[in-house]
Amino acid sequence: MKSKLRSAWDSGETAVNAWLSIPSSVTAELMSKQDFDSVTVDLQHGLNDYQTALVVLQAIAASDVTPMARPPWLEPGIIMKLLDAGALGIICPMVNTRADAEALVDYSHYAPVGGRSFGPTRAVIAHGADYHLHANDAVITLAMIETLQALENVADIATTPHLTGLYIGPSDLSLSMGYVPKLDHEEPAVLAAIEQILAAAHAAGIKAGIHCLAPAYAKRMRDMGFDLVTVSSDIRLLSAAVADTVNQMRD
Amino acid sequence: MKSKLRSAWDSGETAVNAWLSIPSSVTAELMSKQDFDSVTVDLQHGLNDYQTALVVLQAIAASDVTPMARPPWLEPGIIMKLLDAGALGIICPMVNTRADAEALVDYSHYAPVGGRSFGPTRAVIAHGADYHLHANDAVITLAMIETLQALENVADIATTPHLTGLYIGPSDLSLSMGYVPKLDHEEPAVLAAIEQILAAAHAAGIKAGIHCLAPAYAKRMRDMGFDLVTVSSDIRLLSAAVADTVNQMRD
Amino acid sequence: MKSKLRSAWDSGETAVNAWLSIPSSVTAELMSKQDFDSVTVDLQHGLNDYQTALVVLQAIAASDVTPMARPPWLEPGIIMKLLDAGALGIICPMVNTRADAEALVDYSHYAPVGGRSFGPTRAVIAHGADYHLHANDAVITLAMIETLQALENVADIATTPHLTGLYIGPSDLSLSMGYVPKLDHEEPAVLAAIEQILAAAHAAGIKAGIHCLAPAYAKRMRDMGFDLVTVSSDIRLLSAAVADTVNQMRD
Amino acid sequence: MKSKLRSAWDSGETAVNAWLSIPSSVTAELMSKQDFDSVTVDLQHGLNDYQTALVVLQAIAASDVTPMARPPWLEPGIIMKLLDAGALGIICPMVNTRADAEALVDYSHYAPVGGRSFGPTRAVIAHGADYHLHANDAVITLAMIETLQALENVADIATTPHLTGLYIGPSDLSLSMGYVPKLDHEEPAVLAAIEQILAAAHAAGIKAGIHCLAPAYAKRMRDMGFDLVTVSSDIRLLSAAVADTVNQMRD
Amino acid sequence: MKSKLRSAWDSGETAVNAWLSIPSSVTAELMSKQDFDSVTVDLQHGLNDYQTALVVLQAIAASDVTPMARPPWLEPGIIMKLLDAGALGIICPMVNTRADAEALVDYSHYAPVGGRSFGPTRAVIAHGADYHLHANDAVITLAMIETLQALENVADIATTPHLTGLYIGPSDLSLSMGYVPKLDHEEPAVLAAIEQILAAAHAAGIKAGIHCLAPAYAKRMRDMGFDLVTVSSDIRLLSAAVADTVNQMRD
Amino acid sequence: MKSKLRSAWDSGETAVNAWLSIPSSVTAELMSKQDFDSVTVDLQHGLNDYQTALVVLQAIAASDVTPMARPPWLEPGIIMKLLDAGALGIICPMVNTRADAEALVDYSHYAPVGGRSFGPTRAVIAHGADYHLHANDAVITLAMIETLQALENVADIATTPHLTGLYIGPSDLSLSMGYVPKLDHEEPAVLAAIEQILAAAHAAGIKAGIHCLAPAYAKRMRDMGFDLVTVSSDIRLLSAAVADTVNQMRD
Repeated sequence: MKSKLRSAWDSGETAVNAWLSIPSSVTAELMSKQDFDSVTVDLQHGLNDYQTALVVLQAIAASDVTPMARPPWLEPGIIMKLLDAGALGIICPMVNTRADAEALVDYSHYAPVGGRSFGPTRAVIAHGADYHLHANDAVITLAMIETLQALENVADIATTPHLTGLYIGPSDLSLSMGYVPKLDHEEPAVLAAIEQILAAAHAAGIKAGIHCLAPAYAKRMRDMGFDLVTVSSDIRLLSAAVADTVNQMRD
Repeated sequence: MKSKLRSAWDSGETAVNAWLSIPSSVTAELMSKQDFDSVTVDLQHGLNDYQTALVVLQAIAASDVTPMARPPWLEPGIIMKLLDAGALGIICPMVNTRADAEALVDYSHYAPVGGRSFGPTRAVIAHGADYHLHANDAVITLAMIETLQALENVADIATTPHLTGLYIGPSDLSLSMGYVPKLDHEEPAVLAAIEQILAAAHAAGIKAGIHCLAPAYAKRMRDMGFDLVTVSSDIRLLSAAVADTVNQMRD
Repeated sequence: MKSKLRSAWDSGETAVNAWLSIPSSVTAELMSKQDFDSVTVDLQHGLNDYQTALVVLQAIAASDVTPMARPPWLEPGIIMKLLDAGALGIICPMVNTRADAEALVDYSHYAPVGGRSFGPTRAVIAHGADYHLHANDAVITLAMIETLQALENVADIATTPHLTGLYIGPSDLSLSMGYVPKLDHEEPAVLAAIEQILAAAHAAGIKAGIHCLAPAYAKRMRDMGFDLVTVSSDIRLLSAAVADTVNQMRD
Repeated sequence: MKSKLRSAWDSGETAVNAWLSIPSSVTAELMSKQDFDSVTVDLQHGLNDYQTALVVLQAIAASDVTPMARPPWLEPGIIMKLLDAGALGIICPMVNTRADAEALVDYSHYAPVGGRSFGPTRAVIAHGADYHLHANDAVITLAMIETLQALENVADIATTPHLTGLYIGPSDLSLSMGYVPKLDHEEPAVLAAIEQILAAAHAAGIKAGIHCLAPAYAKRMRDMGFDLVTVSSDIRLLSAAVADTVNQMRD
Repeated sequence: MKSKLRSAWDSGETAVNAWLSIPSSVTAELMSKQDFDSVTVDLQHGLNDYQTALVVLQAIAASDVTPMARPPWLEPGIIMKLLDAGALGIICPMVNTRADAEALVDYSHYAPVGGRSFGPTRAVIAHGADYHLHANDAVITLAMIETLQALENVADIATTPHLTGLYIGPSDLSLSMGYVPKLDHEEPAVLAAIEQILAAAHAAGIKAGIHCLAPAYAKRMRDMGFDLVTVSSDIRLLSAAVADTVNQMRD
Repeated sequence: MKSKLRSAWDSGETAVNAWLSIPSSVTAELMSKQDFDSVTVDLQHGLNDYQTALVVLQAIAASDVTPMARPPWLEPGIIMKLLDAGALGIICPMVNTRADAEALVDYSHYAPVGGRSFGPTRAVIAHGADYHLHANDAVITLAMIETLQALENVADIATTPHLTGLYIGPSDLSLSMGYVPKLDHEEPAVLAAIEQILAAAHAAGIKAGIHCLAPAYAKRMRDMGFDLVTVSSDIRLLSAAVADTVNQMRD
């Protein structure tokens, strides 16, 4: 299966993850041709739903990137549908308790690990007829730590069996802590929380990822020890590029 | 932000709301060009899902109407997605208890009021870069009172902090009370329930809305004191108009 | 095959035709449930293209109406695609010369009558495995007479072998004649042209149809001898109905 | 309403059900033209969501088959939307307890039987203006028994008032029991479970259905007493046919 | 009507035009919110067809930019459909002769200027009920000069009555002249051709536009006297931005 | 570029081509995973248009098959759009004269060979930044010989410079010759025509392909010397498989 992400981890490298908010197979294919380790289609704040995620997952299949998805919420129906559609990783929003993390693992793995329902319709087309033999090992589950409640429970969450890692959503986390919601935060309290989550993941022997905006900040997070950094998103990159272009013209 | 609905309320007027059941940006744009105060895209009984709601919300953005949406159910994933897509109001079905109403408020507001996740992707495009500063004030939450259980709990629901108002679904309400499910009911018991809900809303200092079919009935509800009346829907209007046309031809 | 239109004609009745401008299978299905003889999906001024026409043709297949289509232009690719998609009639815009009319017949019939390419992919699903045996007899071709040039050539056009009939587009015809472009014209010169086209069709032993707006005008055309009258369209009906509703509310 | 499935049952016949995994109105229409008793659009492991299910339900409406749907999960929003879209049956995944079965019945029936919200927007177009009078009798609810937990609770589930029947998902059931997940199982323990579920359904006076792959196995299940057998699916049939064709060419 | 482009021209300014190749209403809306004078949806080399162009035209309607479109070819069907869909300008590829230019004018104007068929279905919704009174004045026609043949005929083309202007496609033009096909050419022969076309337009009293890539080059063209400059495109901007981001990460 | 088809030819093998009539990226991806040399998306009799062809071309990009397309007609706009979308071959219907064949070559090649407009938007994403350097060599043009007129002109057509080959459409050819339109014809006159076309291609040093239904017939054509054989299509394979399944159940 598309193991570029796991290969990066096996080599001790920090993976670079792309983020897809635009509901378009065209922009998705374009993004996947760049040298990312994984590409995540976002169904929460991204403007995707299942049907656009499906064509996005098809459009990025010609690349070697590991396809992942963020569901709108911790809900079994859509998580299983995304896995059946060929996603090899789930970045799940709002995992605030150990029970939430266990549910994520449960929805994402076949028995005996979990209760994922069997029917990997596109996964078999995309990843081969023996998909089901390897699915439980291949599927990546990243629990988003993005509230004060999650921060308090971070050790319990990190030690959930079969969970692959934690993923920090800095906007929600900072909002929950009473600060301006944004990426690439410099607020000391937010940075301390980020370090605490990173430490909790590594203490539990699992991975840690974080959503960043600027490459410079992402590299700082990489150097801090994160195993996966997301850099910006398709829609933010386009928005900034067009604004810059118009500004140059309107000078 | 698109404040035509709030302006009507600030002027003491009863707002007139349009209802979109057809999953088409074309009929939506056409409807939005008429002199409504708000336009609601319906994902419950309307034939819309998220992706059609998204293009509908785009298509009505050129008008000054306040865009709202009805989700399929009281579920955080889709409610937050609709708000991120630019809806400025949520008419939520089947709010039967105080806990339901609190959940609706929670899903629709950022901290510290609620737990809405941060990522207003299209809302920023549609409503401006400072959207998040005003979102909690701008977003309208209307709890649908449409069962006997909700009727019993109506005072508790109406006093839920940060709830904007109640919205009566007469079909479900009358069905729940043992009568024929329909709009524009004349059954005394149903009318009494309608008055009770209206009174509960106003006693709590919040708004009251109701779904109507005929303009005459809607005006009666307006005169009774409702703050918002929905008049028919795109699909009902088309259906009646074509039936009338064919009948004229087949005489 | 869906012969309601031909049955009406065989009984000497004037057929009533519905017009679909909205690119939606939902409004199409709704329209088709009313008592029309035929339903025409419009790819010229209607907001349809091939893919929406395809789902529209599927959505109206449960009704007994005869499905027809208006292509964007007299062009073989799209005319043949619409027939392969199951349309049993083509209302072709801008047939201004005998050569145009012959091209329309050519594109719409299999050899030896014409040069329609063979591959009735959905037509076989919708109309049965023996579709190709009956297609040349079943397919209806209506040439739109809607310019001064066409008016001058109307006798030549009307006598084109295998052409089913003429269809008047009053807006373009009146515009071409120097009048305001609109349906239900009362301008004597336009009415005279309409009568001339009707007479030319009947002199040639073929059918005559006309696009109307109000039922009263359509009935007048019926009484004048037209074999097919189109009454309004989905988008005009909806537009008028919603305007009327809002006007009642805003009184 | 489309009663072919109930007619088969009334005649004491085993119904043959088609399964739609491909999100396409074209393949759906093609499938519906064959001599099935019912056609089920699958939103769980099938690659459909609501919007594709809607056009699929429209595309199969010209056939006499009973339209059914499998939702992604036991969730009220999507179950009610599928019924409003015209599905006359719900095959619900992962019904593991009596409470699950009661929820399925609740979501699928109007008061006083259940709490289905009223607004049968397309159902009225497809099934007639009196749909709501007959909906509670017409709608079929089949609870999927596909885990060890469900097996333990099968008698409790089968006796749920107003439940139409049980439906076996052999892949999940065998996986839950520790065997290879697949259809047409020959493992004695799985066959014993299948017989137990069949017996529980019939003891409770309700129907039993099962998902099969090969016609031969489906006929064996029919002879064993099942009231409904699903035979393969659109995507499995296409996949097998194309593989067979290529193999013949590459010999 | 959306006259930002004409206002710029009336003020003697060089208009800045955005280019939409991605078939997405989301990226289109985002682009339209920037300070462009016009936005052109491209159906030729852009990945759009009519149906995506329609939702794009709706999505950019909330901005004050003048909406334009490039059809796939000089063909009446699609040009008229784009105008009916609300485009107020047509940038037509491969106008190589005076006859081509006259055809473009003919397809884009109502009688008596041209032969555009009447039925401005969405144009009326977007631009008002009196659209047809102003359409002939409002609609902009830009003939693409992009071959050696066109270069030879440029004076004849430029003097076509009612043509708004010429638009240079530097990639095709340079390819036709035997050079590498690209934007922002520095080849003297290509620059000479560009100047020749600009001069021909201005000699005829019409506008001249050119497709550019870098803002610096676009400003050079502006300073050279062009009335409209296109700067890059949505897909090129995104592609460059993501490549730059990945390069920063992979350093 | 995806050279599996050319590799087969270079090895002296007969290529096996898949045919896509269903407008679905799902069935397309499934088909492409089988061991075909090329896959052709059909926009003529297949139920595809540009937008579905685009997602189909994306969905088959993960396979090594050579992607091709059949346009609805010999028309420059759509042929260039399909090439820009990444198709590496065009199977063009109704090439009846040398001029038709020259037009096909013209539309499909950049200057100096032809007049293809420059803007390979997705082709660059799919086939690399140097696409334009190799496009004229890579793109395959197959002229469909499918009328008596084409048969008469076959030598002239076959010797058109830069044409890759001829492709026989047996249904139209037999219909044009006065026989039943079908594939796998056994009529001696049709077989003689097939041999004549094959001979004309090989005499001109170009390739010959033919559309077949049964693998046995396709192998016969292979053994007769054809360089490419199409075997059935997605929709025919599914249709036959489901009919066979139902027949087995209904015995």
